[in-house]
Amino acid sequence: MPAHTPAPVPSPAAPRALRVALLGCGVVGTQVARALLEHAEDLSARAGAPLELVGIAVRDASRPRDGVGTVIPRELLTEDAESLVDGADLVVEVMGGIEPARTLIRRAIDAGAFVVTANKALLAEQGPALFEAADAAGVDLSFEAAVAGAIPIVRPVRESLAGDHVRRVLGIVNGTTNYVLDQMDTHGLELSQAVKEAQELGYAEADPTADVEGFDAAAKAAILASLAFHTRVSIDQVAREGISSVTADDVAWARRTGYAVKLLAIAEQTSEGVSVRVHPALVPLDHPLAAVRGAFNAIFVEADGAGPLMFYGQGAGGRPTASAVLGDLVSAARDRLVGGKGPHESAYASLPVLPPAAAVTRYQVRLLVADRPGVLAQVAGVLADHGVSIDTVRQTAGEPPVGGAETGTASLLLTTHAAREASLAATVEALDGLEPVREITSVLRVEGV
Amino acid sequence: MPAHTPAPVPSPAAPRALRVALLGCGVVGTQVARALLEHAEDLSARAGAPLELVGIAVRDASRPRDGVGTVIPRELLTEDAESLVDGADLVVEVMGGIEPARTLIRRAIDAGAFVVTANKALLAEQGPALFEAADAAGVDLSFEAAVAGAIPIVRPVRESLAGDHVRRVLGIVNGTTNYVLDQMDTHGLELSQAVKEAQELGYAEADPTADVEGFDAAAKAAILASLAFHTRVSIDQVAREGISSVTADDVAWARRTGYAVKLLAIAEQTSEGVSVRVHPALVPLDHPLAAVRGAFNAIFVEADGAGPLMFYGQGAGGRPTASAVLGDLVSAARDRLVGGKGPHESAYASLPVLPPAAAVTRYQVRLLVADRPGVLAQVAGVLADHGVSIDTVRQTAGEPPVGGAETGTASLLLTTHAAREASLAATVEALDGLEPVREITSVLRVEGV
Repeated sequence: MPAHTPAPVPSPAAPRALRVALLGCGVVGTQVARALLEHAEDLSARAGAPLELVGIAVRDASRPRDGVGTVIPRELLTEDAESLVDGADLVVEVMGGIEPARTLIRRAIDAGAFVVTANKALLAEQGPALFEAADAAGVDLSFEAAVAGAIPIVRPVRESLAGDHVRRVLGIVNGTTNYVLDQMDTHGLELSQAVKEAQELGYAEADPTADVEGFDAAAKAAILASLAFHTRVSIDQVAREGISSVTADDVAWARRTGYAVKLLAIAEQTSEGVSVRVHPALVPLDHPLAAVRGAFNAIFVEADGAGPLMFYGQGAGGRPTASAVLGDLVSAARDRLVGGKGPHESAYASLPVLPPAAAVTRYQVRLLVADRPGVLAQVAGVLADHGVSIDTVRQTAGEPPVGGAETGTASLLLTTHAAREASLAATVEALDGLEPVREITSVLRVEGV
Repeated sequence: MPAHTPAPVPSPAAPRALRVALLGCGVVGTQVARALLEHAEDLSARAGAPLELVGIAVRDASRPRDGVGTVIPRELLTEDAESLVDGADLVVEVMGGIEPARTLIRRAIDAGAFVVTANKALLAEQGPALFEAADAAGVDLSFEAAVAGAIPIVRPVRESLAGDHVRRVLGIVNGTTNYVLDQMDTHGLELSQAVKEAQELGYAEADPTADVEGFDAAAKAAILASLAFHTRVSIDQVAREGISSVTADDVAWARRTGYAVKLLAIAEQTSEGVSVRVHPALVPLDHPLAAVRGAFNAIFVEADGAGPLMFYGQGAGGRPTASAVLGDLVSAARDRLVGGKGPHESAYASLPVLPPAAAVTRYQVRLLVADRPGVLAQVAGVLADHGVSIDTVRQTAGEPPVGGAETGTASLLLTTHAAREASLAATVEALDGLEPVREITSVLRVEGV
């Protein structure tokens, strides 16, 4: 176990120091370590006992790291994560990934340590098992940083809304895709250009798949749904669609018709169960989510009593994520001192998670159709046949006849009323087969209306 | 003590019911009572023990009230608030005003009851004494509903940011004035017209002084500052300026120059102390607070680690406020069962509250000046003399000479860099005395930049 400058000697009546083990020393871990070392007194005062950072587990302790050897004493680093966990009262896991994070957290829980994690992938996949283990051991497993970085959402939903009933959560929970869509909107960029720009600015990874295809958002959707509806949802139950098919034209059309395109994580409770999905959606420009620009995140919650609420802030980054981790750590320390805040499991129900086709949403469909009388009636007929009613239709003059063609084309923009995803999908398929339809230019869902 | 349908018989192992006394049966009280009666099982499950509404204290029990006699059994009403309080485990105060609320809350605290209040006026005036009493008695005094209605702000700031440091809070905490300013902005209304409209819609009282002159916002600013900086601020330490001098022209000019006018409650920590103030301010249109429309509230928090955060929702109304009260009630019940969450006082510092003149802000000043060479230099000279530097100047052609006058007028729009309120005020006074200055058309502070 690495040695460390001891915490200030406690006065005789003071509680003993709580030993904090940090797993991981990346962008978040470094900031957590710095704060624990530089603001030890302040954090300890808030926690109610000295918090002593006893070690930082890393894969390769010899690798040079920012801050290590200067602010962070080199002796704190260890490659023996297991011994570190075994001697800790509080374990902070910011290594990410499934293994060895899962095994180390299980080990910490089983040994009675209180655990704070920022690991969304792990919670989205293994959350139910880990929470069950934490309940069995009577320890806290805190995860504010795993949902939306710095944005406080766990306490507001779990505690502030404890006397209310959440109906729906709409979240912009991936900063990279929000930045990309925002750039497409404000500068008319195509997706590939905007992604390239995001990569240059460090907002997007070299391989942007996890963000662009909605995997990151889907993990957070699973955690949000579990939180909002006191049930267990895992990532494989989340219907997921990324932004890779969104074009500059889609975004421009959206704005022209009063919408912004956002990648949303959606969790809704219906009488039949819980619907959890991630997909690009049109959000009305006067909706608070439409004003969330750049790489910011926001979570919009609709509750029966409170009405609409929104929580806005930075969803990623070392310091913002560390802020959420430290908030959890202080709470976990307080709970540790009084013996725990009690079981999580008891408050959980087991609601059915609906299949994607059962979700209720609205579509906005752009079509190119033959420009001749009767076409709109045919199109409307297809919608009616599928039980989908039309909210608005907007017809735009298209291209004149080319060559020997009989008719030119017109552009139709249909917005539907709410209907089942399955009916909407079947409608689009039928439209695609309709003789006068030349092209289905785009299909986007509308949310937040 | 009024009789009441007993709570469901608890199973042998279940904890005893917690007796809830409700003080007040207005718009908020009615909703709290309904929820306690209609969702008793759900709330009890979340609280960890049955919550039994044992009585509702009102001034006149014979007065007809919505819901009383139907959802709310008439026998629950009592005019004997003191006996009701004496027999309660949990006391919910939603009567408002200073007395008898203060005396009843003190009585509850001294008897060891946990208290939930939505009373911002009382907390802004008597908060320090009440929190001290609660700490001495080892009971919770919860007040989420007193800050911004349904918007969760107490837990996020106190717990989620426990490992961070709040620098500044900017709040739109009065829905009436936000609605009024928004109507002035979107429809070009004058203040008096917009206030009249707000009155017709029920957003403003017949006597709108408390809202329009910023008294309501000042009470909330005091509570917010106490919360954000772990110190004690009372309403008489808050510099307050309402929106009564804001004209349609001010709002139109603001928009033309890239700002929205908002009534802000501001709490800032500087190296010298805490500055707490309420005044109308220009907020850049791309700032999240500028997108807060209608009667909505929002609280923007800047923290060292988390960066910018915003919390948005309904700041008033029976059901939203009741949602916050019920959230507190469930938490208070949980704490009551385990013996309290511990002292509030320990975490509080005693920071100096700065006098209004010490606040640092920016001014945007509109002037009518004589339209002749050298005037801008004279104006700039006045600013320089007071150590105030100019950010931007915008000169607009004014009126041509009238009658026998030598010169016409031009309009100047000056935006300053940040400076002390005292220097800015002195600058404006000096400009007012400057020969070529015909009129100081408006002076507005700029915040959020």
